[in-house]
Amino acid sequence: MPRFPEFAERTQLITGSVFEKFRAKMQEQGENLVRLHIGDSYIPPPYEMPVDAGFLKEHPGFNRYCDTFGIAPLREVLAEKVKTDNALDATPSRIMMTAGACNALSVSMQALLNPGDEVLVLSPYWPFFRGMVRVVGGTAVEIPFYTPLYDDPGLHIKAHLEPHLTPRTVALYLNTPNNPSGKVLSKRQLQQVADFVREHDLWLVSDEAYDGMVYDEHEHFSIGALPGMFERTLSIFTFSKVYMFSGLRLGYVVAPETVLRNLNKIMVHQLYGPSTLSQQMMVSAVETRSQWSAAFVDHSRELRDMFIQGLEISPQVPEGTYFLFFPIKDYLDGRDYWEVIDACLGNGVSVAPGEDFGKDFGDYIRICFTGEAPDRLELAVRRLNEIFPR
Amino acid sequence: MPRFPEFAERTQLITGSVFEKFRAKMQEQGENLVRLHIGDSYIPPPYEMPVDAGFLKEHPGFNRYCDTFGIAPLREVLAEKVKTDNALDATPSRIMMTAGACNALSVSMQALLNPGDEVLVLSPYWPFFRGMVRVVGGTAVEIPFYTPLYDDPGLHIKAHLEPHLTPRTVALYLNTPNNPSGKVLSKRQLQQVADFVREHDLWLVSDEAYDGMVYDEHEHFSIGALPGMFERTLSIFTFSKVYMFSGLRLGYVVAPETVLRNLNKIMVHQLYGPSTLSQQMMVSAVETRSQWSAAFVDHSRELRDMFIQGLEISPQVPEGTYFLFFPIKDYLDGRDYWEVIDACLGNGVSVAPGEDFGKDFGDYIRICFTGEAPDRLELAVRRLNEIFPR
Repeated sequence: MPRFPEFAERTQLITGSVFEKFRAKMQEQGENLVRLHIGDSYIPPPYEMPVDAGFLKEHPGFNRYCDTFGIAPLREVLAEKVKTDNALDATPSRIMMTAGACNALSVSMQALLNPGDEVLVLSPYWPFFRGMVRVVGGTAVEIPFYTPLYDDPGLHIKAHLEPHLTPRTVALYLNTPNNPSGKVLSKRQLQQVADFVREHDLWLVSDEAYDGMVYDEHEHFSIGALPGMFERTLSIFTFSKVYMFSGLRLGYVVAPETVLRNLNKIMVHQLYGPSTLSQQMMVSAVETRSQWSAAFVDHSRELRDMFIQGLEISPQVPEGTYFLFFPIKDYLDGRDYWEVIDACLGNGVSVAPGEDFGKDFGDYIRICFTGEAPDRLELAVRRLNEIFPR
Repeated sequence: MPRFPEFAERTQLITGSVFEKFRAKMQEQGENLVRLHIGDSYIPPPYEMPVDAGFLKEHPGFNRYCDTFGIAPLREVLAEKVKTDNALDATPSRIMMTAGACNALSVSMQALLNPGDEVLVLSPYWPFFRGMVRVVGGTAVEIPFYTPLYDDPGLHIKAHLEPHLTPRTVALYLNTPNNPSGKVLSKRQLQQVADFVREHDLWLVSDEAYDGMVYDEHEHFSIGALPGMFERTLSIFTFSKVYMFSGLRLGYVVAPETVLRNLNKIMVHQLYGPSTLSQQMMVSAVETRSQWSAAFVDHSRELRDMFIQGLEISPQVPEGTYFLFFPIKDYLDGRDYWEVIDACLGNGVSVAPGEDFGKDFGDYIRICFTGEAPDRLELAVRRLNEIFPR
């Protein structure tokens, strides 16, 4: 049975912050309130830290717990960002900060799935997502999707997805721009996914980690901005890709407040909330994004083109992300798949084996074309050509 | 059935990092390897950051994903720390970094419990722990423990715990120094808990978030250092308390490598791993801890004593942590419990209601005595005296 707009049973077994019930009264007291209810110390760390002293002085709560939904200044600039860049109907209270998109996807699955539930997982997909479905006792129903769209942009999406529906289907997992295939869905294709999801009353988990990382004439659209979609869509973003700060572990979900309240109950039981200091550090990065992001995307496109032109084989040209993803069955030359993976490693290049991206991709490999400096990437191209000659 | 040394079924349904299988071959390649297997970009963030430029230059991977078990330099200094300060039989490979102790407790419960399993939860306890048991379908069996120990330090612990065992008991949750009661278990008391856990073949989850935060003649001992206990103990620490950096969301688990491998599989499905930059920032803080930590603990003790002397009522004097926890039934003066909580808020002091710390503590309140600057704390004492006159 479709569950929308209901949540998984486990969300009924737990509460969010135990102080949520006092929020209104606390706000009423304002600065007058002496806050003894939470365990924390008022003293800033006395040991040396490599953070600018002026910044720390201007951000006096940097070392302390913050609102588990995230700090207000960051949620405010992000609400502006997703309104402007993604056309999402956002307000600060429709944004919750998480420890990366990974964490947002994890809490989404825990908040939406009961044991036995099924999720339609368009494949190829980010490997950890399948595990997130499994740990709550759910089943990931894989549907080859992004790679067929390269060959057949006019694919009848509804007819392609419908055979995989069962009475246990609860949600659909969409990821565009797609890791690993680099496919970027057009607005028309997204509209078809949206129609399907609405018709069958599913939740939609929209992984937009590669938001903004698109090339040539391609554009990224947020499916939650399509008519009637905001209420059932969990739009998930990160600071790990275009912001180039995967080491910060910061991301966010855009969704209706009721949805966020349920996600938050799960999140506080996983890690309480993401780092206060990390959130404070990213406010100006969001505000200044138009000044630096295009240069990064341009540079990534150049690296993509360097790979495409330099490789003797001809992989699919990705429309977004920083990955090449292609089958190697035509280049095995009598060798076994794993022998070739080993040969890459032995020749000084690590690649990701395809089986982790879905059961239909066991003969693919994935390559990240931005992971090392350009001279090293050129070396990698030469080494890959030794393994995969024309 | 006790499960030790086995893990929950869900750990069988997922894998850790998909690249784990290549670890040896990658190490063999060393610097020669061009790493294209993971999605990441080599470029440091081009936007302004408040982190010291010299530090960033010395820590070139600050913005990138790191080993999901944690960065080597931090695990190395922490191994030294827990060997020296906690007598734990640690090595860097017996330490895994997490997003705070909260995250460590969450992954522990997910890795140890199947639905229907029971955990002995010594009470009063940190409120989120009960929810962590519930989200995996487990049951928290509460046993009043820390408060009775104040009245009866010679409590026969084995006889006290044994009636709560059932065939479904899998683990025991211990937290000393205890939040909220401030109780610090003696070595003799810990030995009795250890004997009980070993005799019944339970896992032991040892929450040591308040490690080092003890007063007067009290000392904190790690139960995992007792003979025969390391193999079954998950010793959990944090940077949120003595390190005064709750806003960083960083903690760690000390346990055998097999245990950590299973916890890691869960963690990578919750948030991948904790922040690289946060880990790098804490290496020197651990190394220099003897230079600054005593002053913080002394100051906290002074604040405790200011409260104890200033309050007209006489709460139990805590042996550690930064909390007072006491029943208010004798001070209700005809008022209802919740009326009094409201009266505190209305008088400008927020306190934590006792029911969240266990079913036996509905008439208690918890107060944190380090959460605001001393002048504000003195104001709070005066305000509390208006609500709780002698």
